[in-house]
Order: sequence, then structure tokens, then C-alpha cells
Amino acid sequence: MCATSRSRPTPRTATPGKPGCAVVTAGPGTTDAITGVANAFRAESPFLLIGGQGALSQHKMGSLQDLPHVDMMQPITKFAATVPHTERIADMVSMAFRECFNGAPGPSFLEIPRDVLDAQVDLKKARIPAAGQYRASTRSLGDPDDIQRLADILVKSERPCVLLGTQVWTCRASDAAREFVRTLNIPAYMNGAGRGTLPPGDPHHFNRTRRYAFDKADVIVIVGTPFDFRMGYGKRLSSSATVVQIDLDYRTVGKNRDISLGIVGDVGRILKAVTDAATGRTDNGAKKREAWLEELRAGEKAGGEKLAAMFHSNSKPINPYRVAWEINEFLTEDTIYIGDGGDVVTITAQAVQPRQPGHWMDPGPLGTLGVGVPFAMAAKYVHPEKEVLCYFGDGAFSLTGWDFETCVRFNLPFLGVIGNNSAMNQIRYGQIAKYGANRGDVGNKLGDVPYSKFAEMLGGYGEEVYEPDQIRPALERGREAVKSGKPALINIWVDPNVYAPGTMNQTMYK
Amino acid sequence: MCATSRSRPTPRTATPGKPGCAVVTAGPGTTDAITGVANAFRAESPFLLIGGQGALSQHKMGSLQDLPHVDMMQPITKFAATVPHTERIADMVSMAFRECFNGAPGPSFLEIPRDVLDAQVDLKKARIPAAGQYRASTRSLGDPDDIQRLADILVKSERPCVLLGTQVWTCRASDAAREFVRTLNIPAYMNGAGRGTLPPGDPHHFNRTRRYAFDKADVIVIVGTPFDFRMGYGKRLSSSATVVQIDLDYRTVGKNRDISLGIVGDVGRILKAVTDAATGRTDNGAKKREAWLEELRAGEKAGGEKLAAMFHSNSKPINPYRVAWEINEFLTEDTIYIGDGGDVVTITAQAVQPRQPGHWMDPGPLGTLGVGVPFAMAAKYVHPEKEVLCYFGDGAFSLTGWDFETCVRFNLPFLGVIGNNSAMNQIRYGQIAKYGANRGDVGNKLGDVPYSKFAEMLGGYGEEVYEPDQIRPALERGREAVKSGKPALINIWVDPNVYAPGTMNQTMYK
Amino acid sequence: MCATSRSRPTPRTATPGKPGCAVVTAGPGTTDAITGVANAFRAESPFLLIGGQGALSQHKMGSLQDLPHVDMMQPITKFAATVPHTERIADMVSMAFRECFNGAPGPSFLEIPRDVLDAQVDLKKARIPAAGQYRASTRSLGDPDDIQRLADILVKSERPCVLLGTQVWTCRASDAAREFVRTLNIPAYMNGAGRGTLPPGDPHHFNRTRRYAFDKADVIVIVGTPFDFRMGYGKRLSSSATVVQIDLDYRTVGKNRDISLGIVGDVGRILKAVTDAATGRTDNGAKKREAWLEELRAGEKAGGEKLAAMFHSNSKPINPYRVAWEINEFLTEDTIYIGDGGDVVTITAQAVQPRQPGHWMDPGPLGTLGVGVPFAMAAKYVHPEKEVLCYFGDGAFSLTGWDFETCVRFNLPFLGVIGNNSAMNQIRYGQIAKYGANRGDVGNKLGDVPYSKFAEMLGGYGEEVYEPDQIRPALERGREAVKSGKPALINIWVDPNVYAPGTMNQTMYK
Amino acid sequence: MCATSRSRPTPRTATPGKPGCAVVTAGPGTTDAITGVANAFRAESPFLLIGGQGALSQHKMGSLQDLPHVDMMQPITKFAATVPHTERIADMVSMAFRECFNGAPGPSFLEIPRDVLDAQVDLKKARIPAAGQYRASTRSLGDPDDIQRLADILVKSERPCVLLGTQVWTCRASDAAREFVRTLNIPAYMNGAGRGTLPPGDPHHFNRTRRYAFDKADVIVIVGTPFDFRMGYGKRLSSSATVVQIDLDYRTVGKNRDISLGIVGDVGRILKAVTDAATGRTDNGAKKREAWLEELRAGEKAGGEKLAAMFHSNSKPINPYRVAWEINEFLTEDTIYIGDGGDVVTITAQAVQPRQPGHWMDPGPLGTLGVGVPFAMAAKYVHPEKEVLCYFGDGAFSLTGWDFETCVRFNLPFLGVIGNNSAMNQIRYGQIAKYGANRGDVGNKLGDVPYSKFAEMLGGYGEEVYEPDQIRPALERGREAVKSGKPALINIWVDPNVYAPGTMNQTMYK
Repeated sequence: MCATSRSRPTPRTATPGKPGCAVVTAGPGTTDAITGVANAFRAESPFLLIGGQGALSQHKMGSLQDLPHVDMMQPITKFAATVPHTERIADMVSMAFRECFNGAPGPSFLEIPRDVLDAQVDLKKARIPAAGQYRASTRSLGDPDDIQRLADILVKSERPCVLLGTQVWTCRASDAAREFVRTLNIPAYMNGAGRGTLPPGDPHHFNRTRRYAFDKADVIVIVGTPFDFRMGYGKRLSSSATVVQIDLDYRTVGKNRDISLGIVGDVGRILKAVTDAATGRTDNGAKKREAWLEELRAGEKAGGEKLAAMFHSNSKPINPYRVAWEINEFLTEDTIYIGDGGDVVTITAQAVQPRQPGHWMDPGPLGTLGVGVPFAMAAKYVHPEKEVLCYFGDGAFSLTGWDFETCVRFNLPFLGVIGNNSAMNQIRYGQIAKYGANRGDVGNKLGDVPYSKFAEMLGGYGEEVYEPDQIRPALERGREAVKSGKPALINIWVDPNVYAPGTMNQTMYK
Repeated sequence: MCATSRSRPTPRTATPGKPGCAVVTAGPGTTDAITGVANAFRAESPFLLIGGQGALSQHKMGSLQDLPHVDMMQPITKFAATVPHTERIADMVSMAFRECFNGAPGPSFLEIPRDVLDAQVDLKKARIPAAGQYRASTRSLGDPDDIQRLADILVKSERPCVLLGTQVWTCRASDAAREFVRTLNIPAYMNGAGRGTLPPGDPHHFNRTRRYAFDKADVIVIVGTPFDFRMGYGKRLSSSATVVQIDLDYRTVGKNRDISLGIVGDVGRILKAVTDAATGRTDNGAKKREAWLEELRAGEKAGGEKLAAMFHSNSKPINPYRVAWEINEFLTEDTIYIGDGGDVVTITAQAVQPRQPGHWMDPGPLGTLGVGVPFAMAAKYVHPEKEVLCYFGDGAFSLTGWDFETCVRFNLPFLGVIGNNSAMNQIRYGQIAKYGANRGDVGNKLGDVPYSKFAEMLGGYGEEVYEPDQIRPALERGREAVKSGKPALINIWVDPNVYAPGTMNQTMYK
Repeated sequence: MCATSRSRPTPRTATPGKPGCAVVTAGPGTTDAITGVANAFRAESPFLLIGGQGALSQHKMGSLQDLPHVDMMQPITKFAATVPHTERIADMVSMAFRECFNGAPGPSFLEIPRDVLDAQVDLKKARIPAAGQYRASTRSLGDPDDIQRLADILVKSERPCVLLGTQVWTCRASDAAREFVRTLNIPAYMNGAGRGTLPPGDPHHFNRTRRYAFDKADVIVIVGTPFDFRMGYGKRLSSSATVVQIDLDYRTVGKNRDISLGIVGDVGRILKAVTDAATGRTDNGAKKREAWLEELRAGEKAGGEKLAAMFHSNSKPINPYRVAWEINEFLTEDTIYIGDGGDVVTITAQAVQPRQPGHWMDPGPLGTLGVGVPFAMAAKYVHPEKEVLCYFGDGAFSLTGWDFETCVRFNLPFLGVIGNNSAMNQIRYGQIAKYGANRGDVGNKLGDVPYSKFAEMLGGYGEEVYEPDQIRPALERGREAVKSGKPALINIWVDPNVYAPGTMNQTMYK
Repeated sequence: MCATSRSRPTPRTATPGKPGCAVVTAGPGTTDAITGVANAFRAESPFLLIGGQGALSQHKMGSLQDLPHVDMMQPITKFAATVPHTERIADMVSMAFRECFNGAPGPSFLEIPRDVLDAQVDLKKARIPAAGQYRASTRSLGDPDDIQRLADILVKSERPCVLLGTQVWTCRASDAAREFVRTLNIPAYMNGAGRGTLPPGDPHHFNRTRRYAFDKADVIVIVGTPFDFRMGYGKRLSSSATVVQIDLDYRTVGKNRDISLGIVGDVGRILKAVTDAATGRTDNGAKKREAWLEELRAGEKAGGEKLAAMFHSNSKPINPYRVAWEINEFLTEDTIYIGDGGDVVTITAQAVQPRQPGHWMDPGPLGTLGVGVPFAMAAKYVHPEKEVLCYFGDGAFSLTGWDFETCVRFNLPFLGVIGNNSAMNQIRYGQIAKYGANRGDVGNKLGDVPYSKFAEMLGGYGEEVYEPDQIRPALERGREAVKSGKPALINIWVDPNVYAPGTMNQTMYK
């Protein structure tokens, strides 16, 4: 998918266990791909990057675009190697893919020198691994005794909650997760690619009371997401709660925070087994947890009401909360939502609720601006039948925006929406807070760009939006354009003085 | 255990899941430990090395013994890091141990700068992980569906065999392995630390027919050992056999050779589950495999007879096969046997059969000469009640022999036996073969050293042996000395013109 | 200069010994800068990149945008380190700059963790190096005996030639180089940033007879450029010639090819000293070399005539040789010419001759497409009084083109010219040759983009050119727009079936 | 020299510019050599280590003794690479040697895979660099203007001093240094391999007043030694003095401390040029500095008197100062003195004064215990006509002592002296100071070993010494034994409660 792309390569897979792959040239081709690899590394995406290299016979001689790619990639991949012989190409590709699936998935890198790529060898001498025979299943149950232990813990619990993280999607565990929360009657929060596991409106779907729940729960089950900065390194969980962690990766379990119980394996298989183990009992405790759920539902309602004024704001310049709300209203059951940016996009996390699992994509723990166009490209390529809507900050769009042209060329129409505040606003807030108004704007203001013209130049559809009540109609027209085969850009001018709450608290650094 | 040791650090653990730990000073203290770390890396031993470092405040300034230890250790550890804050010491120790147990175990490294080590902090600010709460169980079952698949394969099999590798010991899976081979009536071969899982004489214990079995079997189950050079990278297994691989490490399964089925998890738990799954059936096929076992037993007998002449040889200089045979005869149920060397020790692999699991230690896939004294030290420290016999080549002994003094000082008596051919003979053979007799001896001959005097100098017991019929009496006297609390060295002069068969075939390079 | 830039950071310095500097955020901010660092590494540009990093107190905990930057940068920098204490910031900046100037210049990298950046310390405790006191002069003469040796060699030589490479500019050695070739009457070829050392028309300026000269010369002096792929690794020099290499970097001298004499030091100081040493003699041999120069001048003339037809071609689509010729005619004494691209730009190397040293910039040995906009930005920033003309391939422009907006915002107008063949044509040629016409176009064709509209969208000037005779008028209008303060883009549609000769010979891989 | 050696490899060269070389096997052969490489890295010794490696065709497959050697060596070498083609072996050896001599010398590493080593190629295709044609001279003068500047500074100076460091020997600059101090009448201190540049008793030889001189001088010239921990990072020099630094390495000049002037190049060539530049003047100021020298000479005398009591001590156990004094008295003009150890050897730095340059060797900035036997071996091999005396701490000797056997085998007799306090005493002092008497002895006491018997066992000469007045006679007998061809070990039992002053101040950590 990355042919002639200016973006960083991006894995996007339709099926669990199917990794992405990109091939790039040596030197700048490979270094331009590093951000994509690093993003996959932090986001736990299985992905093989194959890079070119000068001829092995010219090793260390200064060949064209020669760089020590493998040395650079090793720190951010699960495996990085040079293929030293033509006979080994297929074998080492299998090796690289295998390593992608060890524990939490991630990227691998192979460099194939020019002479290794060009040589011809006897096929009989080469190892050609057969599909399905070069690696084991990833669907591990972990330690069966721990399944029983967790069932015991949950059955006795009165105020449990569960956080469904990215690996719920990685493992295609949505059904298992839904069965788990429904059977055991446990309130569920979602983050990362786990969003959409339960649809908005589902009685076990919670999203505005997470902090309260983590503070009051007696049992907290963390599924498939690490105690990293997004979780305050685990510090925000009640210290008296029984904390259980379920993860694909052994290295993640117990990291940064003590746990009462950890289980390593496929999170879907584990949730299913726990559900089964609890269901077999005379009473799984579902009923006694109803009061706890009602308590949280009341909190959810109160939280939603607080935001309503901003969601419906008619102020000008347009309040970015209004855009967030409009987008959520606009989503269909089948829209894949992609957020790419800082503050304007972060605000949508309070409003946008994908209707299905696998229909939310964001910059992830690396905070990689510029993921939008390549994510949109990949999503549309894998799911041509779906609508893909990508909401960009203006700073983010211009990082990889030229691949809008690639979308035109490869017939991959998507609906781009830009929340344009002519600034890198998340940085701007912190900078003002730290260094004062005088130095606060240095290096974070951007020009006022009518991005709709960019789309038009490339044969797409474009529109500028200045009025709150024009948001919806413009989105509708963009949708029609996309349906007709044209990618579209709706450039919405928003208020640069409205910030996301996390930005104002600088939560991400605590 | 490594205080004032001249040896490389060595993990030796009495219980599965308990890693070794060594603390060394910065600079040469750490670099002298690298071979030990590398050995643990290839041998899959869980082991934390903690090294000193110059003050963080003097970073890159040229402090005493400053070296970039972490950069050097990263390629041969599962985790290597600097501890940057005193508050993080306990946390990062837990992190390093956790990483040791991810997949196949291995070493980790932490470097603690001088000022970080010396500073005092508020304990409340430091994270102090609780034992048992910083990591998950390692006793994974893998994918339960594959347990059923393997049971199906085995029940139908007529000519199966199993290779029990090092991880059978790592996982303390000896009971499970014995039950597996007995219940299903499968001939078992053992290698690495898997030796001794079945005692010599057991009806399912095989060791001279492995090549035949791998060629004729319909199902081959490889347990806990990779397809590395010791297995000819998997090339020596029948291409028509159903090959099953069970391993702690996802990255090992399917590597270098296609497999029919791979299962990743605790090898003991998996073998037990497969036994259970097969036993539940009306017929597990045990009886129909009897002819196959008889066929192999006949081969074993023939193989043993071939070697008998050398085992009983009375030639002078002493034939190293005679020494190997004498040592095997001399072992008790409770002797931990350690081999440290090249050819003279390799020869013992044809004769020495430990009576219990965990009673065989060797240089492993790194081929690390000099492991003997530190292994003996560690084995005796952990098992003071057992006899530890270490058989050295003379080249190997002199690499780390000074720690014989450490054994005296820490009261860790063991029985050292040297097969002394005054050469690095394994290298010598290959060199002669490759470069001719003239250059064949360059750089591989050693002096004629009466090592018994070394033992005596340090307060141990020593003896020189020149006659075949003096081997046993000398060993007996050594045993008595050890019982009295003195380490002993029996220096046996052997024929430098007898080589191990693998050496003559250069199998290790194919 | 890189604030809010989407480009890779780019050093551009007005004075020798003054390095560039860029500051970027952690994670993707740093990884997006890697291509720029790698380019500086291969191009020998002194340059300090400072990257952010998560708090040291959160080391290895998964903080926002945490990546092992230093590990990734080490392979492509002269120095890369974390600053571990606030007291050390100034000191380590001085250390990083010092390392930039060790031998051939290059990039350094420092990462400053968030808490190190934010802490306040007693200034007295911090080391604050004084300007000029933290490093030595770079103006080394090398071994004085070798200066004499080279003077001897040259005075005796009858058919010498000299290649003036990039370091002639790095060392600001243009005057010394001119004096050298004029005093000793030696024909000079130039490459890289050495172009322009002698102006076109100068009697010692040669550029179409290099291969002939390297084949026939008795003495070849290579100044400040390595025997890398651009020099056929030194293989294309006559094997009977006396080859002399002068370079800033010890590691470059004698690399890939034997030399008769090597001198390491400041190339200007060395050329001056050699001129002086030769001048002091009764006869420096200048006159006897006149026949050799005439021989080469005849070759130059013949070479120029061969190209004339293409330079004046009126064919449609426009022949890229015509564009190259028009650009050269259009250059003023004060135009800094930048080439950014593959084939269309490579073709200009046959036509464009900068009038002054330091007025030619190209992608360098890393072959980094996309250097154009950031190079133009930097050149205009440092030399606001000069005209900056950048000629892009269309593939190259779209890699970093969004920074055209940065040029508008920071008032850095330049004249951009695009040679648009809607393809990555250099790759395309090789691909067709290797894999046939069917697969030859896969992944290297681009859309037909009217780039003039991009300029207009951002407030710049734009124009499309389809006719050969419209090139000059369009360039003139672009020049006027730039003078009025607007950056401009002239999008010239060129014939995709004309290739550079090196592309057709695949010289870069030999 | 390292064939069948148990020591770490050690460079020892008779001629400047001639590097050492060692060849070791893969895996533990290479990792056991790492301490030697690291020592050469910190000690600025040019040295190529060539390691084996598994076949390139088995890359990443787990071949025998396969380790990522290059990755491990890169952080501690100037250059580390795999040779990927047989045709490149000679070329890459030349590349590795060239890199050894870039700036301050240091080690390089090449790994040659088994199949690359064994393949046969057409010699015409291989690049075989000619001796003397693959690299430039290292005898750089630096910036000639700075030579004049330094001459000006010195001529005006009234209270100058110079420190002659290791590079005075590296550059074989002893004559130039002597001429410099004598012509300009400057007091000289020496450290590292610079010791012996001036013989004891020379009017410009100073060694007990360095701290005073650094405090009172108006000009301090540091020659060929970095501002590392041994120099208190430059903090101990008067802040009002003009500080000049002369060094082979650009990266060292101005590091850790501001300088008034820095010159990079061959220190001998530079000192000679400065002497010439100063001598040409009517008055080089030599006379006016006489008072300053007298002031220092008085200090030297007082310093010597303070130590006399300990030097002549008759106490029992023997005072290690007495041993130090006896050794100094015992040295001939032609004795190469090697110190290997902690405290007992550090004490000799106060007494032992080599009579010639190049006749002092010590563990260097890495503080590498165990250098003694390999240094002695190398020194004797290169200078068979000289006496080699190595003084060991007992802890140090036992690290590499087995190579005493190698000395016997290769006929390299040397006189070993052990200052035996049965402890790692330097560590012991700090440990007692920091953790109290109870924990002060943990892990640093050694057994009481009669090392003379070790020598005897291996065919050498040995003697135990308990009485102060027996030191000299025993040394004499050892000398005779060595003359007869036997290596000797004189084991002197010394008082474990006498420490070096630096140890008591913990100077090395400040």
C-alpha cells in the first residue's frame, strides 16, 4: 500500500494474526519509514518493513544510500536483521513474521542488500517455509489455574470494573468481552482500539466515570493495555482494590504497579474461559452488582450533562466540542473513525463513540501526529465497503497530507475533516503555561490554510466551514463526494482558545 | 556466590522460576562477566547481573572504569538498562527479573551509577514491588486446541519418538515427561539439561539410536530444545515425519525447519495435559508401538557393544573413552556431573548417564569452556548434600581454575577430574584436517601441567594418574577427600590422539 | 528554523565551523528528524539535533512519546547521548558540538529528559563552557613533511588534475583552491559543494572531460571527497597515476583504493601550503603542463557540442535537458541553486554551473529526495539578500512540500521550479530494465498534479508550463514574484521518456 | 601472542604506529577478549581483534558459538564490522587498522564468518592494500598559528609547568619532550606511559609537588592525557592559570574543562615545533623561571622526606611502602616495570621511577586488574633483551595467572613479584568506610595462597618472603632464575592495614 507514498508505512489488518508489510528503498526510504515503525512498536502492531541496502560486496564502502539500517531499527523492533544470502530470503521473512507475534505484536525489519536481492539460486537449496508451518498459534490460555483464581475473585466481587484495551481488538476478542461483561454484569470501560467493543447505549458501556470507578471498585480487571502514561502508570487505581491484569505480553504484566493476579495469553481466550468458569457456578454474583452499576450510570448521566453546553455551542469561531459532537452524530454503524492530531482530536475522545469494534483508530502511545492519511488509506484498502472518516488537526494533516494524492491515484476515497485552529495547540497551551504569553506562541502557530483547495487541486472534493450550523451539511456533501469516488476535505475553522482537559492538566506527563 | 571470584558468573537455581543474581563492579568487573551472561543467553538461564557504573553526574566524562555497559549487554540479554534514580532501584530490579522469564528464560542486566547507589530517598516515594505481585505465572498451557491435536497425532502414531531437551529441566517437568513416555509408550531421547529425566536402564530411555529414530519415526516430538546446530538445524529429521515442537519460547517454534504442530508454553504442563487428553481415550495406542521400541532397543544394544572395547581399553597413554566409562561407573544416584571442555568431555557424552534430572551440566550451545569451576561452586552451594563431580579438559580448567581457591575459602568441596592431553584437542583435530600436520599444532598445544599440585597449594587434595587401572582408586580417594571437606583434583593423563566422533565429522559446523 | 516544520531538519551555515542546530520534541518529533540527521551524516554537515524525552524518573515505564532515541541515533551520528543532569546541559551541548567537528564534520544528538529540562540548578554548580574555550582549531596542516612531498610530486608532474570536492566549501578553501590551480596550472574538476569554486569560463574550470583526465593523468589529486560510489570507489582512476588524497578525515584517506600520498587536515590550509612550497622553487612546472590543458579543453568543447541539440530541443513534451539549459542561462551571479530529485535534477548536473562557491546544493551521497524545501528555507534564512532557486522533481517536491507554507509564514521567498514527469523516473528506468515493461511502472508512477495551485493556495505565486519557449518567461515572472516577497512554484511538464545517462548505465550501483 | 592464552589480549608495540593484533575464536573466545579490548579503548592502544563467527549462511540460526559480536564490540571500539565476502578480507583489515589510528589510537574489531574464512577467491578480484598506501601519516602538526601562540604564552610565562602524559610515549615524543622542558626550563610531571620520559634525578623531573604546581602555576601545559577522573576532570588546576592542552584527539581537547588554547596533533611534532618557535627568539625566558623551579625542588625534597620512614620500615607484616622502595632500588636502566593491582601497586606509584620512557605499564583508566601477566608476556616478546618485572596484588595475579604457563611454554621469562595481603584491599577500605567494619570485609578477603608453589608447579622459580630484609635477596635470586630462562614469582606477604593515600581519600570518585 505504500508505493510512492510520502507517508510513513502503516499496518492495518483485517484479520488477527495477519501482519502488515511494506517495502521501501535504502537510505532515506528506510529512515522516512522509521516513524511508522516506531508507532507500530508502541502501538503493538504486527508489521514487517523490508528495506533495501547497498550490495553486501560494498559493505562499509560508502555505497549509494548506505546506512546502518539494522542498527537503527533494532531498538524499535522485535527483530531486525540483514539477509546475507539469497537462499535465506524466504526463511528470514518467516523468521521476521514469527517474531512479530511473540507476546504483544510489533514490527520487524529486514534489510536485503542489492546483490542478495538480485542473485539467482537453486530453489532446492533455499528454505521456503510453508504457510502455517513456521510458527505456533498465538491463542494461548496462559496458566489454567489462574483462570479459576480470577473466576473466584470476580464471583465474590461486589464492585468490579473492567478496562477493555487495544488487545481486545488485536485478539478479535469483542464477542468474548461482551459475553464476559454481560454474563458477570460488570461495567466496562474501553480505550485505544478497544473502543467500540460495546456500542454506545449498551447497558455495560461506560465512559465518563472511569476515574470514579477506579477509585471505588473492589476489583479492577485491566485487559490488554499497559500501565503506561495513559494509565498514570497504574497510580490512579485504588490501592485497596484487587487488581488483575490480562495481557498478551509477559513483560507488561506487573510492570509499573503491583498486581494481585496476572494472566498472560490471548485476551479473548482468557475472557471466554473465565466467563465459562464463573458461569458453571450456582451464582456468579451478577445480580448483587446491580447497585454498583446504577451508581455508575448516574455518574455517566451527570458527566454527559456537563458537556452538553459545549457540544451544542453556537459560538464563533466554532467551538471544537461542537465539531466533536457533530461528528459523533454523523457516524454510521459502518464508519471507521480515525483521529489524527493533538487537542482538537483529543476533544473528540469525549464525544465520539464508534459503533463497532475496530472502528476507532488514533495516534496511540507514541502520540504520532500524521497517522491520519496513511491510516485512512489502509482502512479503505482493507475495507472498501466501509466509510472512512478521518478527523485531523491542521498541524497533523500537513505532515503527511500529500498522500491525499495517493488516495486519488489508488481510488481510495475517504472523508477528511480538518479542525483548523492554525496552531499546534496542545503544545501551545503547555508552552504558555510554562514560559508565559510572550514565549508561549513561539514555534507553534501555523498559517491559515484553506485546505479545501488542496483537495480540489488533486481532484478531490473540498469545502471551507466557518459556521456551526454548516458543519453537518458540509459533512453530508463530503459523504456524497466520497460515495462518488472522490476523497474529500472539509476544513472547519475552530476556536484556538478552547483546549482539551488533559492538556490543561498536563496529565500526560504525570 | 561470585564475591572475589575470577570466574564468570553462573546462574544455578534449585527451583524453577528462581533466577540467579550476581553483582560486579564497573568496567572490567562487568566485562569479565560478559562471557557468563552470554552463556546464560544461549543456555536460556534466568539471571540478573548488576554492574556498577561511574556517577551519573559524571556521565561521558571519563570516570574510573566507565564503559557503556548497557550498550554492550543489550545484544546478549533480554533486558539491559541503567537505573537513573535511587527511587527506581527496586522497581527496575523487578523489571529485570520479569524480563528474565519472558518466553525462554535468559539474563538481564542493570547498571547502577555510583551516585544513584549512594543517594538516600524517602521509601514512600520508591516503588517496592511485592514478591509475587510483579509478574505473572510462567506455567502457560498454550493453545488448548493444540493439546487435543497432539493427543490425536500421538494416539494414531505407530513409530513416535520424543526428544526431551533442556526446558524439561527448566520447567521441572521430569515427572510429567516420565508419565508421558510411559503412558503413551514412546521412546525418549534426552539432551542438554534434559539428561537424567529417565534414568539409565529405564525401558523408555534411549541414547544410541537417535539418528535412526529420527530417520524412521512417523511422529517426532521435540520438547524444549531449538533446531540449532546441535540438531543440524532440523535437517536431520525425516522429511515425511509429523514433527511437533513444544517450547517455552514462541520465537523458537518453527524456526529453521517447518513443523506440523507447535505448542508454546510450560513444557511440563503441556506434556501432562497431552497425557491426560490421550489417556481419556479408549486406546492410546501404547501397545501397538511395542515393536518399534523393540527395534530401537536392539539398536541400542548394538551401539553399546561397539563402544565396549574402548570403554575397557587398557592402552597407555590412557584412552579417554576408558576415563569416560570409569566416571560413569563411579557416579552415585546423587552425583551432579559437570563436563567442562572440548573433546575429552564430549567423549563422556557417549558414556556418562546421570541418574537423575538436574544432575548433568555442560558448556551448552555457546560451547563455553571454563564453566566447570563456577558450575561446581554454584551446584555445591545450592546442594551442599550432594556430590559434585566435574570433569575438565586441561585447557578448560586453566581458564577459570583459580576459583578452586574460592571453593576452599567458601567451603564448597567438589571432586575435579582432569582429562589431560596437553592440548586444545577439538580445535587441533580440525586444524590438522584443514591446514595439514605442519600448521595443525600451532596455537593449540599446552604445557604438561601436574594439576594435582595446584590443588595441594590451595589446601585441596590432588593426585596424578597415568595407569588405566589407577583411575578408579584415585577417584575413590578424591571422593574421600571431598567428604572430609577438601576440594580435590585428579589429573588423568590421556591419549591426545583419540578424538570424539563429532570432532572427526566436524558435525558442529554442518 | 525548524519550528513547526514538516521537513527534516537541515544544517546550513554561513561560516565554516558554525554548526546548525534544531530542537524537536520526543518520539515522532525525533524520528521524523532522522532522515535529516542521516543526510548530514553522509553529507559531512556539522549539526546538533536536540530531542525531547520522557522524564528520567519515568525511564522504561512507557511515558508519552518515549523511544530509545539515543540508541537509534548512535549509528548515524558522531556523538549521541542523554543529558542526565540539569547541571550538565551546557557542558554536554559543548561536548556534542565538539564532536561535530572531529575529522569530517557530522551530526550529533542530545536527548534532554523532561525533568532534566525543567529542573532549576545553582548556576555555579553547572559547567558553562566559554565560547572558543571548549574546543581546538580545526585548521590543521597535517604532516608538514607531506606538504613538501606533494609539492615535489606536482612540480614534476606533466599531466596532473585535481578534483575539488565538498570539503573545499566546508573549509571555505575556495581562494586557496583557485590560487593552487592557477599557480600550478592544473585542470580542476569540481563536485558536490565544491562546484562553483571556479566559475564557468575560467581557464582551469573543467567538467566534461573528467573520465578522460582520470584515465590519462600522471598525477591525480583528490581534495575533500571520498572514494565512494560517486567515484566508483576509486576504481575509475588510472592505475598508473600517482594518486594523492587530501581530506579532513583520517578515516577517508586510503579507503577503498590505495593512494601514493595522503594528507589529513584542513584542505584550504593544505592547498595554500602546497602552493607556497611549490612557488618557492625556481620552476613550478606550470608552463610544461599547457599542452595537457589544451588537450582537455578540446575535449570539453567536443563534449559541450554533443549536448547542444538536447539543450536547445523544442520537442513536446518538454525535454528535461532544455529545462536544465534554461535554468543555467537564468542563474545570476548570486543565485543559490538547489537540486532536489532524481533524474530530472541529475540531468541539470550536465548543464547548471553555479557562478560562485557555496551556490550549489544537492541531495548528496544519501540521495535524499525532499531536501529542496528545507534547503531553500535555510539558504534564504542565512542569505536573505540572495536569490534561491530550487529545482525539484515532482516526487521530491511532494515529500516535504508542505513547508512551502513555512516559507510563506517566515517570509522566506524562493523560486521553486518543478520538472514534472509524473513519476519516480530514476527508479522507473531501472525497474523497466530489470523486470520488463509490465512490472516496470509498478509503484513509481505519480498523479498529474498542477503544483502551481498549491503555491497559490498558500499565498505564493504559481504557473504551469507546457511549452519550451514559455520556460524563460515563466521563470522571469517567478523571479518578480519572489522579489515581491512571495515564494513561487513554476511547474514544468517534462518528457518522462528522457533519462539521465547515469541512470541508463546504473552507474550508481557499480 | 595470544595463542592458547587465558589472558585478555594485549597490545604491546615496539614502534609508534604499529598496532597489536590478536585472533580469537567465536563466542566465548571473543567475549573473553572483551576486557582486553575495553582496556585498549580507555588506554588509547591501537589494536585489532579478529574474531571467528558462525557461517554467514547460518546467520541468526543458532550456530555454534554464535553471538552478535559486532553489536557488543561497537561501543568499545573505533570500528567494528563483519567481513561479508572473502574478497574483502584484506581490504577490511586495512580499514580496521586505519580506524585504529584516527585521533587517539584505539581498538578495532573484525568478525570473519566461517564460510567467508574458508572460501577461495580469485586474488585479482580481492582488494589487497599495499603497506603504507592505505592510510595517511599520523604525524600532524595541527594548526601552525597555534604553535606560535603557545610559544608566545610560554616565553612570557614565569611559573609554567607541564604534564607529560601517555601520548608522549604513544607518539615516541620523549626526545622532543626532554628538549622542550630543558630548552624552556619548565618543570615536568609525568603520568601513565609518560613516566620515564625524564629519568629520576633529572633537574626537570618532578613528582611530589604536582598539586602545588597546579595550584600556583601561571601556565599549565597538559600533554597527551585527558581531563578524566585521574585529573579530577580538570577541576584541580588553578582557575587563574593559562591552561593549554595538546592531544592526539580532537574530542579530548576542551573536554570537561575550559582551556585557553588547544592543539590537536602528534604531541612530539608539536612540542618540537613549539621549542623551535620559542628558541628562535632573543630570550625564551628560561632563566627567569629558575626561582620557580627551586621553589618546587624544595617541595620535592620535603615530600620525599615525609615518605622515608615508611620506605625504610622494618615492621612485620611487611609494610607495602617498603616493598615499593625495594623494587625501585632494584630496577636497572633496562627493567620494564609493570604494576598490576589495586592498593599495593598504587603505593608503588609513590616510589617507583622508571629509568626510561616506555618502561612503565599500569592498568590505565579502566583500572583493569589482571593486566600483569599478559603485559609481561607481550613486553618480553617484543623486548627479549630487557628485564621485565611485574608487581602484582594477589587479587590481580589470580585473575590471569594461568598464563604464567604460557610464559614457560613460549620461553618468555619475567620476574613476578606479588604483594600479598590476602584481600582486594582498595575495595575493602572503601567498603569499611561506607558500611562499617561488620560489612566491610564481605566479599573482598582472599585466601592465603603460597604463590611460589604455583611457579614451581609450572617449571618456574618461586619464593615466599616474610621478612623485610629478605625482599632484596629474594629479588636477586628471582633475577638469576629469570636470566637462566625461568619465569619467577616472589610472593611477599604485606600488611593488609596499610592503604594508599588516594584510597583513603577516595580521590578516584571525585
